[in-house]
Amino acid sequence: MKDQIEQEQVDAEVRARVQGSFDRQGLMRHLGARLTLIAPGRVTVSLDARPELTQQNGYFHAGATSAIADTAGGYAAFTLFPEDTSVLTVEYKINLLAPAEGDRIEAEGTVLRPGRTLTVCRLEVFAVRDERRKLVAAGQQTLICVEGRPDQ
Amino acid sequence: MKDQIEQEQVDAEVRARVQGSFDRQGLMRHLGARLTLIAPGRVTVSLDARPELTQQNGYFHAGATSAIADTAGGYAAFTLFPEDTSVLTVEYKINLLAPAEGDRIEAEGTVLRPGRTLTVCRLEVFAVRDERRKLVAAGQQTLICVEGRPDQ
Amino acid sequence: MKDQIEQEQVDAEVRARVQGSFDRQGLMRHLGARLTLIAPGRVTVSLDARPELTQQNGYFHAGATSAIADTAGGYAAFTLFPEDTSVLTVEYKINLLAPAEGDRIEAEGTVLRPGRTLTVCRLEVFAVRDERRKLVAAGQQTLICVEGRPDQ
Amino acid sequence: MKDQIEQEQVDAEVRARVQGSFDRQGLMRHLGARLTLIAPGRVTVSLDARPELTQQNGYFHAGATSAIADTAGGYAAFTLFPEDTSVLTVEYKINLLAPAEGDRIEAEGTVLRPGRTLTVCRLEVFAVRDERRKLVAAGQQTLICVEGRPDQ
Repeated sequence: MKDQIEQEQVDAEVRARVQGSFDRQGLMRHLGARLTLIAPGRVTVSLDARPELTQQNGYFHAGATSAIADTAGGYAAFTLFPEDTSVLTVEYKINLLAPAEGDRIEAEGTVLRPGRTLTVCRLEVFAVRDERRKLVAAGQQTLICVEGRPDQ
Repeated sequence: MKDQIEQEQVDAEVRARVQGSFDRQGLMRHLGARLTLIAPGRVTVSLDARPELTQQNGYFHAGATSAIADTAGGYAAFTLFPEDTSVLTVEYKINLLAPAEGDRIEAEGTVLRPGRTLTVCRLEVFAVRDERRKLVAAGQQTLICVEGRPDQ
Repeated sequence: MKDQIEQEQVDAEVRARVQGSFDRQGLMRHLGARLTLIAPGRVTVSLDARPELTQQNGYFHAGATSAIADTAGGYAAFTLFPEDTSVLTVEYKINLLAPAEGDRIEAEGTVLRPGRTLTVCRLEVFAVRDERRKLVAAGQQTLICVEGRPDQ
Repeated sequence: MKDQIEQEQVDAEVRARVQGSFDRQGLMRHLGARLTLIAPGRVTVSLDARPELTQQNGYFHAGATSAIADTAGGYAAFTLFPEDTSVLTVEYKINLLAPAEGDRIEAEGTVLRPGRTLTVCRLEVFAVRDERRKLVAAGQQTLICVEGRPDQ
């Protein structure tokens, strides 16, 4: 993963803006989520397994899976937004493809189509056990760039 | 609301099955969510405002909104399922209509079309301030009834 | 239905704008669809059964069902837009709930949340046989109001 | 594209089953759509520009775009189903990313996750002008395999 981060480095201003916004999200901290990649148009968020994140059968709850997918997509879009803007999720759709179990889950948001007002992202969530990744959720998300209201 | 609960009472077996499953969800407990209505084909889940549930601007995080919406819809479907089955979310789509701020949010899942295998629910989330409700999210969800695998 | 139309009459300018735009849609004409209600925030589009609209089992094709649902929702939003604007579908999601068979199908688009930029609609499609309606599809749609580009 | 077809050939029974089912769809014939690739888990459907397919501004109507996207995804799933089954669309979600204009549009359905009961596909629609493709729509679809009811 290291090489990839080097290659796809976003500039310092964008990185600070994304990380700063993420750090202000009470829910991400409460769940234990962390930003693991900030690239232009692509962001990943990871979440280690904990009993606090489960549904009734002990798997990751779809709510946890969705929360980090939505967040990854939102910040993927945000990396491409101008300064002094903020990002809001308009809507998303997600399919839960398989039980999400493992050491952690990793959500990846990728900009499919950037736009001045609306941006569309692809969402993927992988369950990782012993460093093997399995796709457990996939979705698509629409985001809006809100001007004149910096995210700070 | 009391009258409604009386009117729409589900039988004791269903109520115990839904409440028992909900109580096994680590995420719902961690977020502080609670089941506030269990009616046939309709379930509500509420979540009081806390700093642990926020996005970067202090509103409820879309992940929290979605998590209780998904849960409300899942159990709304489950109230109509036979014993010895369990419920899984196949997919859902949700629009975030307005910033979710207030004393609490309430998600309501309502079965739109029940089925032997697949059930479709309507999802609505309201933000409540001083007992006035405002629709902040709306969605639609597909669930599957898994036979021969009781949820316990 | 007549009374309802009387009650919910939109003004003549809006009605002409919606009907005029609909009449310019080559696809609606090719399918044989017609506007059957134009009310503020609510529009219906109907489509009579024809062999040209079927899927492989003789039911209405999901593509026909979706096409009139998308159109009904788009014009429902458009009834609330200012003059000199046009409407574009950002995205929609639709569940096909039951085989669509009967004398005709009727799609109803209803504005769930109007907005200056984005509007969200609920979509419902009914199959009608001997004047009995059955819900065969349900969805949700996001539309954008495009300013400075009148639809004409 | 020819090489690709050679490489990814599905067996004759599957090809005949998919083509036969497609040919029984009145709507596809009425629109002028044709199957342009049948590979394992991947199908494309093309539609040449005609005035009969337009929305009010002369672009391809979202209903036409969606109809071939839904069909491509349905048959992509169907290539992986056993004999004596049929395929039904449970639901889909589609984002219209850009005006669909050009010589033709091509929808590609790709199985993202196959399953015994449910299959999930990715949907992409490209507008083609002078053989250059532009992504104009993207979506995700859930399909169900119906046993004991061959599609014939």
